[in-house]
Amino acid sequence: MPRNIYAPVDAAKVPRFSDVATFLRTKRVDVNEDIDIGLCGVPFDIGLNYRTGPREAPGAVRHHSRIIRQVHQTTAIQPHEMCNIADIGDAPVNPLSKDESIANIEKYFANLKVNNIRPIAVGGDHTIPTPILRGIAADAPVGILHVDAHADTLDEFCGDRVNHATFMRRVSEEGLIDPNRVVQLGLRGSRFSPHDIQFGIDAGWTVITYDDYEKMGRAAAIKLINQTLGTGNTYISIDIDGLDPTECPATPVPEVGGISARDMQVILRSLQGADIVGADISEIAPCFDNPTGITSIIAANLMFELVCIMAYAIDQAR
Amino acid sequence: MPRNIYAPVDAAKVPRFSDVATFLRTKRVDVNEDIDIGLCGVPFDIGLNYRTGPREAPGAVRHHSRIIRQVHQTTAIQPHEMCNIADIGDAPVNPLSKDESIANIEKYFANLKVNNIRPIAVGGDHTIPTPILRGIAADAPVGILHVDAHADTLDEFCGDRVNHATFMRRVSEEGLIDPNRVVQLGLRGSRFSPHDIQFGIDAGWTVITYDDYEKMGRAAAIKLINQTLGTGNTYISIDIDGLDPTECPATPVPEVGGISARDMQVILRSLQGADIVGADISEIAPCFDNPTGITSIIAANLMFELVCIMAYAIDQAR
Amino acid sequence: MPRNIYAPVDAAKVPRFSDVATFLRTKRVDVNEDIDIGLCGVPFDIGLNYRTGPREAPGAVRHHSRIIRQVHQTTAIQPHEMCNIADIGDAPVNPLSKDESIANIEKYFANLKVNNIRPIAVGGDHTIPTPILRGIAADAPVGILHVDAHADTLDEFCGDRVNHATFMRRVSEEGLIDPNRVVQLGLRGSRFSPHDIQFGIDAGWTVITYDDYEKMGRAAAIKLINQTLGTGNTYISIDIDGLDPTECPATPVPEVGGISARDMQVILRSLQGADIVGADISEIAPCFDNPTGITSIIAANLMFELVCIMAYAIDQAR
Amino acid sequence: MPRNIYAPVDAAKVPRFSDVATFLRTKRVDVNEDIDIGLCGVPFDIGLNYRTGPREAPGAVRHHSRIIRQVHQTTAIQPHEMCNIADIGDAPVNPLSKDESIANIEKYFANLKVNNIRPIAVGGDHTIPTPILRGIAADAPVGILHVDAHADTLDEFCGDRVNHATFMRRVSEEGLIDPNRVVQLGLRGSRFSPHDIQFGIDAGWTVITYDDYEKMGRAAAIKLINQTLGTGNTYISIDIDGLDPTECPATPVPEVGGISARDMQVILRSLQGADIVGADISEIAPCFDNPTGITSIIAANLMFELVCIMAYAIDQAR
Amino acid sequence: MPRNIYAPVDAAKVPRFSDVATFLRTKRVDVNEDIDIGLCGVPFDIGLNYRTGPREAPGAVRHHSRIIRQVHQTTAIQPHEMCNIADIGDAPVNPLSKDESIANIEKYFANLKVNNIRPIAVGGDHTIPTPILRGIAADAPVGILHVDAHADTLDEFCGDRVNHATFMRRVSEEGLIDPNRVVQLGLRGSRFSPHDIQFGIDAGWTVITYDDYEKMGRAAAIKLINQTLGTGNTYISIDIDGLDPTECPATPVPEVGGISARDMQVILRSLQGADIVGADISEIAPCFDNPTGITSIIAANLMFELVCIMAYAIDQAR
Amino acid sequence: MPRNIYAPVDAAKVPRFSDVATFLRTKRVDVNEDIDIGLCGVPFDIGLNYRTGPREAPGAVRHHSRIIRQVHQTTAIQPHEMCNIADIGDAPVNPLSKDESIANIEKYFANLKVNNIRPIAVGGDHTIPTPILRGIAADAPVGILHVDAHADTLDEFCGDRVNHATFMRRVSEEGLIDPNRVVQLGLRGSRFSPHDIQFGIDAGWTVITYDDYEKMGRAAAIKLINQTLGTGNTYISIDIDGLDPTECPATPVPEVGGISARDMQVILRSLQGADIVGADISEIAPCFDNPTGITSIIAANLMFELVCIMAYAIDQAR
Repeated sequence: MPRNIYAPVDAAKVPRFSDVATFLRTKRVDVNEDIDIGLCGVPFDIGLNYRTGPREAPGAVRHHSRIIRQVHQTTAIQPHEMCNIADIGDAPVNPLSKDESIANIEKYFANLKVNNIRPIAVGGDHTIPTPILRGIAADAPVGILHVDAHADTLDEFCGDRVNHATFMRRVSEEGLIDPNRVVQLGLRGSRFSPHDIQFGIDAGWTVITYDDYEKMGRAAAIKLINQTLGTGNTYISIDIDGLDPTECPATPVPEVGGISARDMQVILRSLQGADIVGADISEIAPCFDNPTGITSIIAANLMFELVCIMAYAIDQAR
Repeated sequence: MPRNIYAPVDAAKVPRFSDVATFLRTKRVDVNEDIDIGLCGVPFDIGLNYRTGPREAPGAVRHHSRIIRQVHQTTAIQPHEMCNIADIGDAPVNPLSKDESIANIEKYFANLKVNNIRPIAVGGDHTIPTPILRGIAADAPVGILHVDAHADTLDEFCGDRVNHATFMRRVSEEGLIDPNRVVQLGLRGSRFSPHDIQFGIDAGWTVITYDDYEKMGRAAAIKLINQTLGTGNTYISIDIDGLDPTECPATPVPEVGGISARDMQVILRSLQGADIVGADISEIAPCFDNPTGITSIIAANLMFELVCIMAYAIDQAR
Repeated sequence: MPRNIYAPVDAAKVPRFSDVATFLRTKRVDVNEDIDIGLCGVPFDIGLNYRTGPREAPGAVRHHSRIIRQVHQTTAIQPHEMCNIADIGDAPVNPLSKDESIANIEKYFANLKVNNIRPIAVGGDHTIPTPILRGIAADAPVGILHVDAHADTLDEFCGDRVNHATFMRRVSEEGLIDPNRVVQLGLRGSRFSPHDIQFGIDAGWTVITYDDYEKMGRAAAIKLINQTLGTGNTYISIDIDGLDPTECPATPVPEVGGISARDMQVILRSLQGADIVGADISEIAPCFDNPTGITSIIAANLMFELVCIMAYAIDQAR
Repeated sequence: MPRNIYAPVDAAKVPRFSDVATFLRTKRVDVNEDIDIGLCGVPFDIGLNYRTGPREAPGAVRHHSRIIRQVHQTTAIQPHEMCNIADIGDAPVNPLSKDESIANIEKYFANLKVNNIRPIAVGGDHTIPTPILRGIAADAPVGILHVDAHADTLDEFCGDRVNHATFMRRVSEEGLIDPNRVVQLGLRGSRFSPHDIQFGIDAGWTVITYDDYEKMGRAAAIKLINQTLGTGNTYISIDIDGLDPTECPATPVPEVGGISARDMQVILRSLQGADIVGADISEIAPCFDNPTGITSIIAANLMFELVCIMAYAIDQAR
Repeated sequence: MPRNIYAPVDAAKVPRFSDVATFLRTKRVDVNEDIDIGLCGVPFDIGLNYRTGPREAPGAVRHHSRIIRQVHQTTAIQPHEMCNIADIGDAPVNPLSKDESIANIEKYFANLKVNNIRPIAVGGDHTIPTPILRGIAADAPVGILHVDAHADTLDEFCGDRVNHATFMRRVSEEGLIDPNRVVQLGLRGSRFSPHDIQFGIDAGWTVITYDDYEKMGRAAAIKLINQTLGTGNTYISIDIDGLDPTECPATPVPEVGGISARDMQVILRSLQGADIVGADISEIAPCFDNPTGITSIIAANLMFELVCIMAYAIDQAR
Repeated sequence: MPRNIYAPVDAAKVPRFSDVATFLRTKRVDVNEDIDIGLCGVPFDIGLNYRTGPREAPGAVRHHSRIIRQVHQTTAIQPHEMCNIADIGDAPVNPLSKDESIANIEKYFANLKVNNIRPIAVGGDHTIPTPILRGIAADAPVGILHVDAHADTLDEFCGDRVNHATFMRRVSEEGLIDPNRVVQLGLRGSRFSPHDIQFGIDAGWTVITYDDYEKMGRAAAIKLINQTLGTGNTYISIDIDGLDPTECPATPVPEVGGISARDMQVILRSLQGADIVGADISEIAPCFDNPTGITSIIAANLMFELVCIMAYAIDQAR
């Protein structure tokens, strides 16, 4: 199989501000078997209960990912040399039907799996890992790194069971994640009930609240994360509100404190060697991001980190 | 019955920037029989198919309505002297269930009718007139002034029948409006199909596209509107995108051209004498309105125009 | 030749906020002979002498053109049914070399002509009509409708002869425009010298300053424009600062007064029947357009107007 | 006396975006007898009762006046050729003492009069015409064109007699204006009491509400304004909220409707021939003007209009 | 006495974006003896000498406090279960009279004390602790934690003695604070004179400049703060510019460096056990906070921290 | 020679928001021999290959430097007491000619050297150190502290050799810097090629990537910087993108991570004692900085730090 067939053209020939915006300036192609990593959007945002806007995130992150170059600064990974990475468009959503959207998203990701494409998705709100994992983890549960301010373990909210506050509960109940290989990172913020984060602890997950993170420090956290996840199949779900809202303000439910963008980069780099099978970056609301675009810029950079460790995993597997 | 019991306190005693923001600085009270005009929000915005955000409009219009004083500049109407006007909070919506929200909104407005309260609602997206009219026009169809860039006469969109593109179709089918007393004003913008506005024409409605409006001029349009609506029971539904988006930019689906805010004021004033039984101002997306707040400022002023003609109708009816 | 092969997919299947942003949601394809109308960007902005930013306009207009549907509201033209319209990417520019960029742009548009593609370009600053017309009007001068606050007839500025203040002088000197078929529309704003607009008058052009426009009214202006241009080959160059900056604020050199967006629409519609061979919309600086995006939204709508009259011309010519 | 000694340098040598921002790019000099027209700021904004911010207006208008060139587009007036125009800095204000500020402002403008300098001031809030007119009209009352949404004729507000709602009452009582040569233009907006505008009518002023203006049209209004003011000594006070807030949104108390920026230009041009002795442009709150800066851009253009008619008056008087 | 009578309704029933915005979604009630903690605004901002805007802060913080839930994430405190917390509106200010405002504010807070209500106020500029402490500490001086970039110890500024640069000097002179129980935290920024912070040192206060804070670290600072304040009656005054302006940009006088929002949270939590008798959060200028609202979001979170430790103190005292 | 002749007037007499904005509120004077430190702008931004805007930075930093007072908070340096510091306007640039601009800038700075003025320049893009150092370091190479996310060591970009990606390569080749006294600080971000930073390492420079910086900590970095630079003649070039873009978002090419504004302050303070001969702060794009202005505020503070250590060096040399 040829490599690098969808890679960005040279920025000295087509300046980065030029032409159609695709994720990381890769080629926009339809799903096909030559693709190893599929960068896609999931513009679903009707699973929210406070502020809204993430339906515009795939477009915004595409735009701001114009800045990304092709060589990793620290690890020297050149992902486009290692495998075929393409922008495969957006998962089909119906803005007027939550149920249909969730079914469609599941089907879309299941089909990627059939094509042996590993997805990195930009949400959308944080409902989307539920259908994504239904699509790609139905046969074998995955380990998961879940970065978030909120535990997302409610059983229901407003009488609804599949929304941005319930994803970890659902994927746990449905056996899509391996409880021994779950890390929740960054939990904080005032709570609806005193028991919000207890579910994960009871389920045997490794829960690193932001209080914990600050206490143990980044290095110890990285060690704990890597010990827990190991090198097996791993999904990474980044709710951008897991990061510090003074750095990533454009998000529906910001909470004071949180992982810095820099720390998030370093944590992701530490997962080089794990078998990253999929990822999402969710809860970016571009309408709160102008004129700096900083939240989308950070998301674009995190997508590049994810691409690099995923490309490495693919390369290792060959 | 005492009048003016919920009227704004003196701006020289409590400056307009001070204290909790309520609609037109009226008192926030629960639904009760002393209220004549109920100012309320309907923060429902999951009936949209393009940009989103109107769930924040009731809050934003409350804030920007701090500017409104108590005497009308042209008609000298002093609405708070004529009847009891209060902020009655928001209709109950479930951000995670479109169906439940629509049922709740209907019930909420039906209850207002039982209490003999005339509502002026701030949406929310333009799905809301469907449940509002189900609530208040079930027994007798109303005349309607529908200001909008879009005809809202689709039978379905994305397979869905109750959303911001279908309201006029639904309330027509359900017999909630009197086809002889319907005016659509401001229609324009590129279309999904060549037949988008034909439904209303076929139904016998008075359709004034923006092309028509410009050709006939404001005075003739006012005459036609008044002839069509007469002095009977009338509902006014203002999709803010019926106005010029260079004046009201903060809306999900802006279309070039449109009624100016000034013209909208004058048109509403011309309806003094009609029996205004309810109204909504919808499709304001505050996230596109900073830092000027101009769309919400205009909406607040239109609410005051509606209050004045509604108060006049109530006073006349005594 | 098949038609409509690059037309937008159904907004009910792929919501307008979804997937990669292309001009008017057409397909992004490489230059080829099947294309009739080529929508492209020219992200060149180093020909400016005051504020900057237009290099980001092609991306911004692509994004905001998501809103455009497929049927014209007034003329019922369905351009995608009439010919093949595609997003052909951006002309090659070198952000570090004005001369090289200008040469490249000329070559790019000359090649479009070879392929029988009529271009509608989004600038970039208003230097770009010079190389565009060098590319497409070298063999036969064109009539031109030049909408602008400024005459663009300086011989040089800062010692430089090809920049955003000289384009009409250059294309006139180079015989690229037919002096009998030139209309300048919208001129106004304080001037560097008393003779700024005299060049065109002396050259026999039809100069409609904004003072003139206001005096004669839109209908008379349309008549004069059509009389002057006739039905021959016509290029349309819209410097967005020709429009009212209270409607289109995001532009490097705004001047009080100006054509309204609505009037611009109606004027363009009046040219249905002329042989529109090319067009540009220039001087949009998106960094001054947040959060409303109104300037780019208007530009997207004007692009749709241009597409409709150009498609009509193509259809007529068959 | 030499002319043009403080005129802007050539924009082709010092680009307009370059160097320190002064009003209209004139030289910043201390008050001296060579100056004919003194452009100055009055950054006083503690006379407001709703939103605040005008203390930043002199700086913002200086910045946005970079765009202004040296020749008038319609009248061909070249003011810098006719007299000496300079930026003379700001009147001294004490942000912590309203009384001291008002006294200082009066003294500052009285001193300009001693130096035979005609001032064009950028406020500050609309308290400032009171001390300005005390400074320059103590010996002989002036005619006045007062453009505003509000009548500013309250006797007191919050127990205070010198603030942005009382200026016309104070200068009238103090005999600083000639009641036969007063025009109020643009009045509109909801009112605190039914009698707000009656004061002026009773005093014999020519009151043109926005309703009146719309009815009579611009040409008739210009005629009435000129008839009323004649060619005598005239002061022009522009509260920017007299203009349409959809065009000038950055103002503390915006009211729907209002004079367009274009109309304001044309009205000011019509006063060429009157003996313009002073002027102010007030109530610009730059914090509501980003990123477009449109309110300050319009104010800078109005300052240029004022400079042109004032220079003409000075030239005529020689 | 019943508890929790004014507590927020369930966010699953009334979504957080819905209804009138009150502080922390508590009920807006008039001052009465059932209230334990009174959340209020003090929209006074005419004590400033640089940028302005804080009069809009009480409204903005109310809006952004919609996000706050009812259980503390770290301490598990549920303040609404412990005592009655209500939004009691705003202290009366006269925007046109500094002296009257200051007298009114004092009276307002003195009355709260009479009603045994502990206040948490949102300013307003940082003049307000002077009248607040006059109101609540007249009988017994309080310990104080003063977080600020500036020492606020000038004797006068612009000849004025009660403004945002003098509060610590005034309350010290007036015996309202106990010099042995004063902590100033976060001082930094260029200075008017070399002696700006010396006053506090001479007075025996514990002064922790930002240089000191960085050197000693958060843990040591917390220890020092707690040792100094002890468990006695303590007032907390947070000038938001004490925090890092890259996190809290919307403030009149930002200074590089400063306490992080996270650190501020942790420091406040450490005061659980002290007898918190009142607090203010001042110098938030919402006009510099759009579209993120991050400064107000942080302020709302700090208000929740204050509520928790104050509720704990009340509960302990029972 | 008299000192302090151009120092800021008292902020209690001329409030900081008042009058024309100059750098640090110093007097704007023409180049003359009395000046010791010349604060100037270099509004050149046509050397960029991604986003643009820095031509507006000198104006924006002047405006936001209104906040700076006259005494250093930590070192107690009072620079205006030590030497004459003035705003000397902007270097002449031709926005339409890169070559001419670069030649002009060189000449301008060479002339400053002739006048014995040490410059602190606000860019402009990061092309400008090349002509600045050609102007002031032609006779003797300087040591340099280069703070940046990018190495700026490309040989050419887009075929161009003098632009914002090549400055360190050019000044190195031209012998303008002493390779033994070079520190690059803050390098990070995805790369065009794996060899981007190798040039400096090969050239013997001290390269502190952000990874290195984080590892060694600020204190060790300061030690290494001071050891490398010593007390000799030193130039400081701060590309604002060397700082954390969550703190300084308004920059053309932001990269995640980076030196905090606080750390930058402390690092600059550590250079007290070095012979600072010139400095620039570049790559500020104000159009991405509204409404907070935080990037320009930080830049103004860094300018004050530079002024203090430069004034100290001048004072020491006397």
